Amino acid sequence: MKLKAKEIDLESGDYVAIINRKDAGKMGLRSQSRINLKKEGRTTTAVIELSESLVAEGEIGLVEKVIDEMEAEEGDLFDISEAGRPESVEHIREKLEGEDLSTHAINEIVQDIVNRRLSDIELSAYVSGIYANGMNNREIKDLIQSMIETGDRIEFDKHPIFDHHSIGGVPGNKITLLIVPIVAAAGLIIPKTSSRAISSAGGTADIFETLADVNLTAEEIKDIAEDVGGTIAWGGAVNLAPSDDLIIRAEYPLRIDPYPQVLASVLSKKKAAGAEYLVMDIPVGEHTKVETRELGRRYARDFVSLSEEIGIETRCALSYGGQPVGRAVGPAIEAKEALMALEGKEVPSSLIEKSTTLAGMILEQSGIREGKKEAKHLLESGKALDKMKEIIERQNGDPEIDSTGVELGDHSQRICAVEEGYVDSINNEQIIKIVRTAGGPHRKGAGLYLEKKKGDKVEKDEVLYTVYSEKESDLEKAVKIAKHLKPLKVEGMILEEHPDLQKVC
Amino acid sequence: MKLKAKEIDLESGDYVAIINRKDAGKMGLRSQSRINLKKEGRTTTAVIELSESLVAEGEIGLVEKVIDEMEAEEGDLFDISEAGRPESVEHIREKLEGEDLSTHAINEIVQDIVNRRLSDIELSAYVSGIYANGMNNREIKDLIQSMIETGDRIEFDKHPIFDHHSIGGVPGNKITLLIVPIVAAAGLIIPKTSSRAISSAGGTADIFETLADVNLTAEEIKDIAEDVGGTIAWGGAVNLAPSDDLIIRAEYPLRIDPYPQVLASVLSKKKAAGAEYLVMDIPVGEHTKVETRELGRRYARDFVSLSEEIGIETRCALSYGGQPVGRAVGPAIEAKEALMALEGKEVPSSLIEKSTTLAGMILEQSGIREGKKEAKHLLESGKALDKMKEIIERQNGDPEIDSTGVELGDHSQRICAVEEGYVDSINNEQIIKIVRTAGGPHRKGAGLYLEKKKGDKVEKDEVLYTVYSEKESDLEKAVKIAKHLKPLKVEGMILEEHPDLQKVC
Repeated sequence: MKLKAKEIDLESGDYVAIINRKDAGKMGLRSQSRINLKKEGRTTTAVIELSESLVAEGEIGLVEKVIDEMEAEEGDLFDISEAGRPESVEHIREKLEGEDLSTHAINEIVQDIVNRRLSDIELSAYVSGIYANGMNNREIKDLIQSMIETGDRIEFDKHPIFDHHSIGGVPGNKITLLIVPIVAAAGLIIPKTSSRAISSAGGTADIFETLADVNLTAEEIKDIAEDVGGTIAWGGAVNLAPSDDLIIRAEYPLRIDPYPQVLASVLSKKKAAGAEYLVMDIPVGEHTKVETRELGRRYARDFVSLSEEIGIETRCALSYGGQPVGRAVGPAIEAKEALMALEGKEVPSSLIEKSTTLAGMILEQSGIREGKKEAKHLLESGKALDKMKEIIERQNGDPEIDSTGVELGDHSQRICAVEEGYVDSINNEQIIKIVRTAGGPHRKGAGLYLEKKKGDKVEKDEVLYTVYSEKESDLEKAVKIAKHLKPLKVEGMILEEHPDLQKVC
Repeated sequence: MKLKAKEIDLESGDYVAIINRKDAGKMGLRSQSRINLKKEGRTTTAVIELSESLVAEGEIGLVEKVIDEMEAEEGDLFDISEAGRPESVEHIREKLEGEDLSTHAINEIVQDIVNRRLSDIELSAYVSGIYANGMNNREIKDLIQSMIETGDRIEFDKHPIFDHHSIGGVPGNKITLLIVPIVAAAGLIIPKTSSRAISSAGGTADIFETLADVNLTAEEIKDIAEDVGGTIAWGGAVNLAPSDDLIIRAEYPLRIDPYPQVLASVLSKKKAAGAEYLVMDIPVGEHTKVETRELGRRYARDFVSLSEEIGIETRCALSYGGQPVGRAVGPAIEAKEALMALEGKEVPSSLIEKSTTLAGMILEQSGIREGKKEAKHLLESGKALDKMKEIIERQNGDPEIDSTGVELGDHSQRICAVEEGYVDSINNEQIIKIVRTAGGPHRKGAGLYLEKKKGDKVEKDEVLYTVYSEKESDLEKAVKIAKHLKPLKVEGMILEEHPDLQKVC
């Protein structure tokens, strides 16, 4: 059946097309049926919703996403047919039944995901299946290959290409803003693509966006990295392993990170981004993604062996994830702390240690001896700061920026101890929750600054941390939650229950 | 935030509310966020979609389902707040991780399903989890209790209440139209609630709807059953274990029937419908739900023991499911065949055997000896037919109807053998596919009549089966598929490959 396109101003989760109830009746379609849309060789799949008034008979209402993908205009004629059940659903069922999937089956699944042929129900069953029953390394390798092949790749003229990745879960992990300029200052090429926050207080892309533009094209990433040595870009602006983001859409609401998918997600993006050498940071600690060393080691082993199979030389480091890295958590405030580190100002030594260790591992992959020492030298000499300014300038930021110039939210509130004691633990998840309630990562000025970290002695009425927000109302909500959650646990020398260990001061 | 209701003419899968992009921004909501809607004590949950033009600032667009549930009118003010992630998602994750669920956890999940607080992604993960990891009998019992408690129940004044159920998967299974009148003719009470087809060619409700009204209220089911002894109603018109239909929404596209969910689905509906004695038919055969006797026996054991725990005395029969029951498949044509059986006209003896065996088991539960013999007597004496006419009359059908008066689709096509041989097998799934393609169960006149069944001798050019359809175009599609699928496998005495064993004739 041919239907005439009409743009519908509606943003929904799925690829949605709205058709008239009468046309649906003629075609035997119901709400939530899937249809193929064809126009001049282009084709896509959408879920239908029915209406009598939003679209007339003979019309098809298309949301912006579909209009864009099909390069359509109002009035264009589309050829509509019912889409069969995707073959890959059978393979998803096989995985739920505990079977290993063939290379062909995995290709089918990934292609159907990328072409948006799977509904939310089917996609969720895929994620659930690999979460419940896992994948062997052959399956994961096939998954990585499929995820790469269904997207674009960045091809560099210069080689080798270095890269770095942290599997995340620990707040305040702004190390990329130190590692990239250090590695680039050593004369190596490190085109770093990063994510925005999904469940965290700020992804590297969110953080660096407070200093420069991160929406770079593949061409720009290549050019800047080959010219300057380093770049920090948002991976979402380039079409690398696009299945990943679509899969995350189902993982996020379930708060599950299927092990095979974590491996495939990282390595497919890195390979598509051109990486030949990779250093992985695996933070281990309570309330992070990787809660035990045992799991961390398993990740490390599998990252190394799978990388090798797809032509990347990878080294992994398990890092301490028991509390936030540095003192700052949130987009702008982390950018500020990273600049302070590059400027040689005082920041927690653990931040310097972690960043130079990982940067050093990359330097050693390139053949430089005593990598960490060299990394420290590049940092302390100011060469990394100079390189950072070059990168910021090339990404349309202000190269004159310094740490004092980074703007935090106007509204802030300090949280104090009500009794003296020692900081016994800091809950990463709760820290993230407070920053998100304060408006982050969407509002870049939202954040949290830890005056005290684990093991620090705290006097009565002394400040534990400060919450920043761009909006008074967000600050109020964040402080309310902070007082309720008590993310810093302060213990006296005599351990007992305290009704209210933290207060606004 | 308070928003003013505006009715939006849109039928989508989820409970959807459309809000203006600016209002969403103020509340920090994104497309697919879930919100709570409150109005005068009533509350529900909906998924939001965003628009700038369909609703103005200060308005909330509600689809008909939500308007109805909230008893709302345009202009009503709704209190809108972001809905937190349902607690039950954590329990769904536990099940994916292979854990047993507590009674509390199961209650939470079922309540969230009934209150539509789970998104498609979350619901699918629930179904996937129990499909992948199963449930023990304590969990299943808890699931049954929760499914009953979250819906209505039919309370009878007369007792005992008998019931019957077939777990389905075999086409042509119109036995309920024989069993109910036989049992009622014996003076017992059998208020049978049935489903419509989900994946089959016609559910019992679809079949009986060609003879009478099946949309009965709980009150009508009670009154008719207590007056006449029997009734055949559509279960979907009464609110018995409503979670079941919501769960099926996720099972159907995945084509999975998690074992614990099958048990819970049947027993929760039967208990809520007032059953005290139950006879279960478990068809076993290739291309049915239960493919092996071993699985059939497992179902039988678990049905019996779980029934006992919730106060139902159940007997099970494994029946032959290796080919359709009787010769007719499809709503009207099955009603016709059932009436023929009641009228004493010639139908396959297997249909009579199966129906009287199961009806006899029910009679024996009531204390009648030699139940099958008595069932046959009630059938052959015409007492069951008289009872059927009483039931039809009470359900607003025409009591004068006889089998010759049932209308099939106007368009038909015979399919013939191209060589002589024997019918070696009949593929149930393919038979169903042909009938669905011919328009069933939506178009009641669509169907298929088997002239030959398993083991029958077939001459060259002899008719194998006839396809019926209400529409010429549907018939063409069905015949095309029939020629391609060849659901009847005809083998010569010398087994060899035949290129084309079935043709239009």
